[in-house]
Amino acid sequence: MQIMLTVAYDGTNYAGWQFQKNALSVQEVLEDALSRVLGKRTPVTGSSRTDAGVHAIGQRACFTVDSISIPVGKLPYVLNNALPQDVKINRAELVDDDFHPRFMATNKTYSYSIFSGAFPNPLLSRYTCFWPYDLDIDKMRRAAYYIVGTHDFKAFCATGSSAKTTTRTIYRCEVMTEPYIYGGIIKAVVTGNGFLYNMVRILAGTLVYVGQGKIDADAIPDILSSCDRTRAGKTMPPEGLTLIEVGFNPLP
Amino acid sequence: MQIMLTVAYDGTNYAGWQFQKNALSVQEVLEDALSRVLGKRTPVTGSSRTDAGVHAIGQRACFTVDSISIPVGKLPYVLNNALPQDVKINRAELVDDDFHPRFMATNKTYSYSIFSGAFPNPLLSRYTCFWPYDLDIDKMRRAAYYIVGTHDFKAFCATGSSAKTTTRTIYRCEVMTEPYIYGGIIKAVVTGNGFLYNMVRILAGTLVYVGQGKIDADAIPDILSSCDRTRAGKTMPPEGLTLIEVGFNPLP
Repeated sequence: MQIMLTVAYDGTNYAGWQFQKNALSVQEVLEDALSRVLGKRTPVTGSSRTDAGVHAIGQRACFTVDSISIPVGKLPYVLNNALPQDVKINRAELVDDDFHPRFMATNKTYSYSIFSGAFPNPLLSRYTCFWPYDLDIDKMRRAAYYIVGTHDFKAFCATGSSAKTTTRTIYRCEVMTEPYIYGGIIKAVVTGNGFLYNMVRILAGTLVYVGQGKIDADAIPDILSSCDRTRAGKTMPPEGLTLIEVGFNPLP
Repeated sequence: MQIMLTVAYDGTNYAGWQFQKNALSVQEVLEDALSRVLGKRTPVTGSSRTDAGVHAIGQRACFTVDSISIPVGKLPYVLNNALPQDVKINRAELVDDDFHPRFMATNKTYSYSIFSGAFPNPLLSRYTCFWPYDLDIDKMRRAAYYIVGTHDFKAFCATGSSAKTTTRTIYRCEVMTEPYIYGGIIKAVVTGNGFLYNMVRILAGTLVYVGQGKIDADAIPDILSSCDRTRAGKTMPPEGLTLIEVGFNPLP
């Protein structure tokens, strides 16, 4: 039988999702806890290989067992007791044996958060990128509008990526704001059928450059068709990025 | 000349605001940074002696100097470079020599945040208290209504407090909610002319017990007049508490 977990983590102290030889990953911490609980070394497969410092609320991870003595619904309680404070399980559910959490994901939603204020805020610095420059939200929204749709996102992909195709479909790209004491939080929420390496962080960096007036909002179609990475914005730092959700049903 | 700083901190790794012999306090970290920047040992006086693990956005701290070569408005930039990520300055301003940040504070605002969901959320656990039981918000709001006004808050004060009087005036006590993935955030925001030892955390614990049905909302006037600590709710843990603002003008 195969079980799928919904995993939330604060990525600050991890070298990313994926197992690494010389650094602690979320996958390793989760496999260790699972193996202790099940009494048997149990590998897990994740939906998204989030980078070092990136957070998640809705990461998915699957594992296979011959049988399990704990009712599946109780598994989050038992696992959470074996996990550190910065990695927790929200849900456990049975899935088909041929289900695959990465290959069968039809869409993923990420959010990138910026704290816009004069001075950094210690209560936000783990989960937002501090940006002490004025941002024009209307321009950022106009740029976001051009991102939605099926495009070649080569200009928004870190060099050295091994993706077979750089075409992706973005279903939603929204810029939202929340007031905050001594500043404001600006959030870009992006849903797509898949993302290239660093794509969300480059998208966020491009929106930020548009907000600052360094890139014209109406130049986005041109930047997309140029397939030229140097024309898009900077790769934003990992702390602002959170994997919100992984979907397995085709979006309309 | 006297200068007042507005200080924000993540209290997780500190033994509270106040200097302590064998543990690191926010005051010590701030005094160290200030002394390095000014080239002279410079003590600071805070508005509120927040407890270990309690956070602040609007703590105030004053210090006196004969003269200063840095323009006062630039001081936050210089100090922030000398401070760790979890303590930052939002503002610096000249105040009268006879101003006192604690004795002259006329009101303080605290917020207490709870994450209400089935499982703990690693992205919230530093700044909210996890509460996995259903809470009736309407009942909590009804109880909050009774807290507003001038009352003897002895029932909401930790034993062993040395306060001369236990009468305080609460100007505002509001229960607010925000949706959050896999749960919701419930925030109690309280403004008063002063607070007894642990008073906000006991108020929050009482509101939570009311929300759970362990205390009747309409029993609050009775609990207040009983002056009996055992009749109020539990003292909530520090991580949910944040000092939001300190005011120096009388509220109407």
